[in-house]
Order: sequence, then C-alpha cells, then structure tokens
Amino acid sequence: MSATCDIEALAAHVRAGRRAAIGRAVTLIENARLDRREDARALLDLLRPHAGGAVRLGVSGPPGVGKSTAIEALGLHLIALGKRVAVLAVDPSSKRHGGAILGDKTRMGRLAQESDAFIRPSPSGGGLGGAARATREAITVMEAAGFDVVIVESVGVGQSETAVADMTDCFVLLAQPASGDDLQGVKKGVLELADIIAVNKADGETADAARRAKRDVEAALSLLIPAAPWWRPPVLAFSALEGRGVTELWRAVEDHQTAAREASAFHARRRDQAAASMDALILEGLEAALKADRDAQRLRSELREQVRSGAIEPSDAAARTLDVFFAKRA
Amino acid sequence: MSATCDIEALAAHVRAGRRAAIGRAVTLIENARLDRREDARALLDLLRPHAGGAVRLGVSGPPGVGKSTAIEALGLHLIALGKRVAVLAVDPSSKRHGGAILGDKTRMGRLAQESDAFIRPSPSGGGLGGAARATREAITVMEAAGFDVVIVESVGVGQSETAVADMTDCFVLLAQPASGDDLQGVKKGVLELADIIAVNKADGETADAARRAKRDVEAALSLLIPAAPWWRPPVLAFSALEGRGVTELWRAVEDHQTAAREASAFHARRRDQAAASMDALILEGLEAALKADRDAQRLRSELREQVRSGAIEPSDAAARTLDVFFAKRA
Repeated sequence: MSATCDIEALAAHVRAGRRAAIGRAVTLIENARLDRREDARALLDLLRPHAGGAVRLGVSGPPGVGKSTAIEALGLHLIALGKRVAVLAVDPSSKRHGGAILGDKTRMGRLAQESDAFIRPSPSGGGLGGAARATREAITVMEAAGFDVVIVESVGVGQSETAVADMTDCFVLLAQPASGDDLQGVKKGVLELADIIAVNKADGETADAARRAKRDVEAALSLLIPAAPWWRPPVLAFSALEGRGVTELWRAVEDHQTAAREASAFHARRRDQAAASMDALILEGLEAALKADRDAQRLRSELREQVRSGAIEPSDAAARTLDVFFAKRA
Repeated sequence: MSATCDIEALAAHVRAGRRAAIGRAVTLIENARLDRREDARALLDLLRPHAGGAVRLGVSGPPGVGKSTAIEALGLHLIALGKRVAVLAVDPSSKRHGGAILGDKTRMGRLAQESDAFIRPSPSGGGLGGAARATREAITVMEAAGFDVVIVESVGVGQSETAVADMTDCFVLLAQPASGDDLQGVKKGVLELADIIAVNKADGETADAARRAKRDVEAALSLLIPAAPWWRPPVLAFSALEGRGVTELWRAVEDHQTAAREASAFHARRRDQAAASMDALILEGLEAALKADRDAQRLRSELREQVRSGAIEPSDAAARTLDVFFAKRA
C-alpha cells in the first residue's frame, strides 16, 4: 500500500515536471528488468494516459559527425522557440557506472544548463534490447512530464540506429564530408532508415565538400525506393558549429510531421512501432530462456562448431538444440 | 533397414548425377519439415562429404529486370565453358502445385534443354524460413551431384534477397534503367548486400540510360561503407538479351572468388553463414512453438491490439505472453 502511494506520488511529481522525480522514474524503469517490475509497470500505467504529445525525434550518424554539437544546437533552437526538450540515448555499449552522465552533460554543456532541457544518458546493461526497451519507456516518462520534443540519440554502434528509428516519429541521419571529397561512409542499411539527411560541417574549409556530399546523397537516395509514398527524404547541409541551417532542419522535421499526419501515417507508425516492439521483446524473451537453459546452451555451442566445420546441417543442429530445450518443458 | 538402403541408393544416384534422383532428393528435403525428417537428414549426411565444391552464386533484382534472361544467358555461357550449372530459387510467395515448375522451365527454355543444366523452382510452403532452409540444403544436393556452379535466384520479394545473399558466396544484384533516366528503385537495404551490381538492358533505346544508371550506382556505392575491406563491388552494364557483357559478369564473379580466397574470407563466409542459419532456425523454432500454443497465441493477439491502441506497454504485453507460454512448461 505504501509502495502504491509512493508510485502515485512519483507519477504526480513527474507530471508536475520535477527534475528529480523524472530522473527517479527513469531509473526505476531502467532497473525494471532486474526487480521492481511491478512498480515500473504501475508507474507507466499512471503516466501513459498523459503521454504521446511530444515530437519523437531520432538522431544518428557515424562517430565524429558532431552529433552532440548538432543536438545541442537543435535543442537550444527549440528552447528559443519556447519548447521543452528532453534528450535520451540508446547506446548498447554503455556500461553501468561508466561516468556517462557526466560525459553527456559535459559534451552538451550549454543545453544541460537550460531549465527547459533534460538530458539523460543511455541506460546501461541489458544489451541493445534492454537499452531500447528502457529508452522507449523513458519517452513515456518525458511525454507525461510535458516535454514537447524528445530527441533520442543513437551512437551509431551495432543496430542502435534501427532501434532508434523504430521508436521515433522522424529519424534524422547526420552525415559529413570525409577527408577527401567523398562523404564519410554511411553504415549498411542506415541511409534507408532516414526521414531527413543532414550533412554537417557546411562551414569553413569543409563547406564546399559538404555541398558536394549533399549532391552525392541526393543521387544515392534517388536510387532507393522511398519507404513511404508521401515523403521524399530531403537532404540538407548545415553547420552545427556555427548554428547555420538548424532552423531549416527543424522546419524539415515539422514538414515531415505534417506530411505524415496528412497521409494518416503518423499514428499508424506509432502503433506499428509499439506492436513491433512487443514482438521483438517476445523473441528476446524466448532466446533468453534458451540461453538460461545450461544443457541446451552447452549443446548449442558444441553443435555450432560442428555446423561451422561443415560436419552437420544447420537444420539438424537447430532441431537437436530445440529438442533439448523443449524436452524439459513438455 | 530397407529405408536406409533406399537412402543409400538415392545418395549414390545423386552422386552419379542422375537427374531423376537429384529431383527426388530435393523433394525429400523440401518435405522434411512435414515428415521423413530422418530420411532427409540421413541423405544429407551421406552427401555432405561430397559437397562444397561449387561456386554458389546469388542473383536478385526487382521484377521486370530480366532475371530469367540474365540467368539463362549466364548459364549458357558457363555450359559453353564446360561447366555444369544448377539453378535454384527462393520464393517465399511460391504456392504448392502452383505450376511453378512449368513456369520456370518455360521462361528458361533454352537452358532447361541443356543436359548440363538442372533447373529447380522454389520450394513452396513454409514461408521464407522454410524455403531458405530447403534451398540451402538443396545446394548440398547439387554440389554432391557435381554441379560446378549453383545459381540461387531470389524473386526480390520480402526478405528473399537477404536469405539468398546469406547462402551464397557471391551475390549479384541486377538493376535496370527506369522509364526516365533514373535507375529503377533498388529495395531497402539490398544495395548493401551486393558483391557485384549488373545494370541490365544496356541495349537498344535503353543503352544510354543504362550507362547513366551505372554511374549513379557507382556514386551511391561510394557513400556506403564496404562490407569487406578487400572488395569494392564493381558496377557493370550488360545486355542479357543480346548476351553482351555476360563474359565480364562471370569474370567479376571469378575475381570476387579469388579476392575472397586471398583474404581468407571464402571459407569464413561459408562458416558464418552456416552458423547464422542454425541460429535463425532456432529462433524460428522458438517462435513456431509459441505460435502453436493456442492460449499464448490468443493472449498475444489480444494484447497486441491493446499495445497498438496505447493501452499497455509493449514490455508488459511481451512479459504476459511469455508467462503463459512458459507456465505450462515450468
């Protein structure tokens, strides 16, 4: 009973926008996989009716592209427009107690000082699935707390871009000119996820290279079948450092939101994302159960080596592993 | 005992290259998920020591790109070089008794008449996972039967390109100029799978457009991080209809094989593919078990609707579905 009251009080404080409560709520959700799952669920049940109102903006790009500078520039622009901005992250490589909080606040120092901004580093542990689940639910907290824009940053490691694109309304891919004239390599399959591509570093010595990179990306995009018939991803050149082009970047996000709503695709995307998240979590749960079964896991490792050496067929190895797993549960 | 002798005789006939036996062996493997799994496994165990010797070549491209014409031209070229060629397919949309055999032989009429060619339509039923598993194992049959090149065609539907790229040594993506000057759209994520891109229809009125499309693809590729440091996917223009550029296409395949072997990547790719296939089949088996559990499946459907409407969190829905599934098996 007391715990229930605590959760209700926490939810009320989150809705009132109190920073300490918001932080505590996210911590509760991040730890939910270990214990206190009931509390996290109860909290989310209380917050969910008040969530859904923010623009969920995904931002990714290769290391060194200037993601922090770009997010800070965009965040300050939004605050100047009178909006409240939360910044979350999905980093599957993030380690617990790794000092990421300090790191995040340092690298976005000006934004972190704003009372209308809330910066939270990636949840750590649990791998990509755990980080994605926790960040997804942290969006609910931020929305219930009244933030107008929730920026979710992907570090560009592993499949974190896909995870971020799968939980946001609009996915912005940051790119940059490489040392030569070429665009620095875009990772496998990531270009196709982008709703907007923004070429950073259109300043100083790299200004011309950025403009050429913009044209190259446009040519590349023209080869791809657009993900949605109602939207052609625009390619912008901007300078996070000098703050130029940030207005245009936000306008592109707004255009994308308008186009999505006019095509009745805005809520459909959110609904599909939620259902896909459920299915992914079910698959992860099934695999986790298999991994927790020592006998099945030992056999799986042995058989995988035999499969790799060509001694047995993959289907044979899979069937035998599953037989051991399900035999105990029949 | 009699069944064992039958399987041994079948394996011997396959190894002797008898067409009827090869066909029977593949049928046995395709039906293995339903019954006679032991026979299929015994057959593959007998054939596997004699497999592995072929070039496994994946071919895909959007509908209308001229895949059949290209595969036939390539197949006839290989036969002229003294090689024996098998053509398999992965088509998740293929229906049993759908007349696909007749269809395949008709559309590759000249190749089908060659005694050194063997054309087999996609296994039907079982979805993509089933078709991929059966085709993967059919490659073993073809190799044991002494074919020098096994061409695996993807229809370009669903995730069939990924499935084909994941079971072949070299994945060729066919493209074509669109009605205008642009290249006809390449599907999400498929360009990155390609070891070689071949722009078809470099003939007649589309010759200039094909050359421009070739340049566009080259520009697009320069934006992508190459999948392997030892290989830059070349872009060729060719005409399957006139048979021009087919020699160069095969030479590119051979160059890729040589580069892979020199980088010690050839066998590594096959080993990784086999292990990944095992893992994918395990995941499919876990999901199939969940789907076969009526109670869990009914709850999952109900909860998915609640997730879609925003009434509950995806993590909550996943946990409750898994609880029902595992409760019976605890």
